[in-house]
Amino acid sequence: MMVTRTGIVARYAETDQMGVIHHAVYPVWFEAARTEFVKQAVQLSYSQLEAMGVMTPLAELTCRYLSPARYEDGLTVETRVTALTPARIEFGYVVRRETDGAELCRGTTLHGWVDTKTFRPINMKKRHPELLSRMMKCMEE
Amino acid sequence: MMVTRTGIVARYAETDQMGVIHHAVYPVWFEAARTEFVKQAVQLSYSQLEAMGVMTPLAELTCRYLSPARYEDGLTVETRVTALTPARIEFGYVVRRETDGAELCRGTTLHGWVDTKTFRPINMKKRHPELLSRMMKCMEE
Amino acid sequence: MMVTRTGIVARYAETDQMGVIHHAVYPVWFEAARTEFVKQAVQLSYSQLEAMGVMTPLAELTCRYLSPARYEDGLTVETRVTALTPARIEFGYVVRRETDGAELCRGTTLHGWVDTKTFRPINMKKRHPELLSRMMKCMEE
Amino acid sequence: MMVTRTGIVARYAETDQMGVIHHAVYPVWFEAARTEFVKQAVQLSYSQLEAMGVMTPLAELTCRYLSPARYEDGLTVETRVTALTPARIEFGYVVRRETDGAELCRGTTLHGWVDTKTFRPINMKKRHPELLSRMMKCMEE
Repeated sequence: MMVTRTGIVARYAETDQMGVIHHAVYPVWFEAARTEFVKQAVQLSYSQLEAMGVMTPLAELTCRYLSPARYEDGLTVETRVTALTPARIEFGYVVRRETDGAELCRGTTLHGWVDTKTFRPINMKKRHPELLSRMMKCMEE
Repeated sequence: MMVTRTGIVARYAETDQMGVIHHAVYPVWFEAARTEFVKQAVQLSYSQLEAMGVMTPLAELTCRYLSPARYEDGLTVETRVTALTPARIEFGYVVRRETDGAELCRGTTLHGWVDTKTFRPINMKKRHPELLSRMMKCMEE
Repeated sequence: MMVTRTGIVARYAETDQMGVIHHAVYPVWFEAARTEFVKQAVQLSYSQLEAMGVMTPLAELTCRYLSPARYEDGLTVETRVTALTPARIEFGYVVRRETDGAELCRGTTLHGWVDTKTFRPINMKKRHPELLSRMMKCMEE
Repeated sequence: MMVTRTGIVARYAETDQMGVIHHAVYPVWFEAARTEFVKQAVQLSYSQLEAMGVMTPLAELTCRYLSPARYEDGLTVETRVTALTPARIEFGYVVRRETDGAELCRGTTLHGWVDTKTFRPINMKKRHPELLSRMMKCMEE
């Protein structure tokens, strides 16, 4: 199974008055990590995917916050594909603190495969079977 | 059951290059709506709660995205308490477009009751029973 | 001279670990206030302007921070046009705390009039003289 | 003169519906770059500075936007100290696109040296002369 590891440094602007990273920042980190995953998995940038007429807007998001991240923390986001059909793709994420490997947050994002122009669902098996099969391979052992 | 309705106008900075509001913005709107809910429910601002030694950091977040919001859309966030114990509180949210009432996003946030100084869980039944019972009343018919 | 007043409530997500609103939030408030100004001044939403082929990306931004805003503060952003040519428009902003009228931040944004498709400068005197003259009127006593 | 170079990858969440990076993101990048500069200049993290009782809230911000950054662009923020007194410090920034070195944005931030507890100005020559002189050295040829 393919897992990518994306390095993130927590920014001051991302803290809140509780003195920790605000919870709405984690989905932004997931997205930065997903960008890297997709690039490695299919050798295409997300911008190139969009140019091919494919977008992947979010259908669902979940986050579990286990321990707070703090300003200047070095973090790693582990990303993998956890479910895949011709209509949808789900990614799973674990955010770890680099110094001790502690899990700070776990999350998932579920996306539809959507046409860039019409915003309507597409069947990837028909539209881009090669992309779908490359993504499928990311889930294999 | 108490339900508050908070008006939001979608900001340009909240859009992304897909031409819609970015998905990480909804938890920020939930929070603005929760601020109003708590103020109405217990007649205290969240800042006053913090001054009383109580914080409610997130333990879990879920969002389901049903239809995109767009720049300048007038929106309403409906907020209610969906679960409550002396250790935890869960809120539920529905984001609607004002023009037609369409549901754009549904979400939940689960929070622990935590001590401001120690960041450790507190038992609200012992620490602030009056606050807990006022919150309980928000769930009654 | 036309001045609009836009109400803002400071959000928790907008605070930082200094316990105040993060400085990068003010340009976002300026933009929300500018949206209202333009709507009142020319009876068009910014989305309608974009549909007419006109965009106004930023060329310059300045902010002077006088006193911090805090979570849940009720604020007013005063907006006016401070300079206008067929090629450029500058807005000025004052952010005030509602309770005492104290000035918290002053800022300016300078924008080019730009074609939506080509991203190239346009001469508003030729392209949309009626819009330009309506904007001009906002600067008169 | 000491100049640091901080790598940034533009995030999808940072784009807006114009298809470019939103202008309010640049001050956040400046801050991430400033964090690295300070760490290199005085061998202290900003968190350690705060623990020593020193904060540097913004007094002024300026940005000039020369050319838009886009999603997935690899960028470099060049940072230097442009002015320094016992009461204030100013940083200058240039954001460049890595592929061709093009300047996308230039900015400055002016900060007061402030006491963490009282939020009042401090005289660094009296309070932390060694820090001040290390910062001074960053401006020398």
